[in-house]
Amino acid sequence: MKPAACPLCQPAAPEQVLWQDARCRVILVDEPDYPAFCRVIWQAHVAEMSDLTHAEHQHLMRVVLAVERALRTHLRPDKINLASLGNQVPHLHWHVIARFQDDRHFPDSVWAPPRREHAATHPLPDKSAFCAEIARILA
Amino acid sequence: MKPAACPLCQPAAPEQVLWQDARCRVILVDEPDYPAFCRVIWQAHVAEMSDLTHAEHQHLMRVVLAVERALRTHLRPDKINLASLGNQVPHLHWHVIARFQDDRHFPDSVWAPPRREHAATHPLPDKSAFCAEIARILA
Repeated sequence: MKPAACPLCQPAAPEQVLWQDARCRVILVDEPDYPAFCRVIWQAHVAEMSDLTHAEHQHLMRVVLAVERALRTHLRPDKINLASLGNQVPHLHWHVIARFQDDRHFPDSVWAPPRREHAATHPLPDKSAFCAEIARILA
Repeated sequence: MKPAACPLCQPAAPEQVLWQDARCRVILVDEPDYPAFCRVIWQAHVAEMSDLTHAEHQHLMRVVLAVERALRTHLRPDKINLASLGNQVPHLHWHVIARFQDDRHFPDSVWAPPRREHAATHPLPDKSAFCAEIARILA
């Protein structure tokens, strides 16, 4: 996939962006079952973690863990799920997902068939405070 | 889940262990569709990456990336998938999976319904050399 055809090479809608710097951005994914589903996207078109330099992958994981920490503080989930897959869009990005025992797929992955139809969704109680928490951790 | 009931608190079968130190172990998972499926397991019973100290999570990611690099060298996959889920077993572990366009689920995650019945499995050509490569990267 060439960058010109890559959806993650396009800028995110400004209202989706929770935090960003020159190297990566954190967005809130438009996912009805998981309204607090976050994605950390490397800005450059790179496929794998091991394509990054040591300093780059340290930075990316620092941002991923900041999002994990902020989700734990703001939502008190039963578990955090982290995943970097990229089979459909081979542009490095991390899914950071707060999981709850009453969510649509628990205890399966969010990519498995759903376990329940009418599931709790656990939105962020305060998106601005959540953004501020990520920025605070990364400051 | 208490450590006594946690399957990841039990030692792995010696023939499964590809590499280990006092903090984590790398095992080859017994997964027929993905015979090179690796798992990096934190030795202590901890649930989340953000429960580790900075030095600990740096060490764990260093091992995860060593496995990624060794898989890329030995299998030349189309993509690497990394995931730390732990909804079923909340003991910190990473799945490191070499993915191929002709595997059972590509381009979906390995937790999705399969895409094809008779899929290529891409085993490690030389398990000893693969172990040696992980050890070399981590030396």
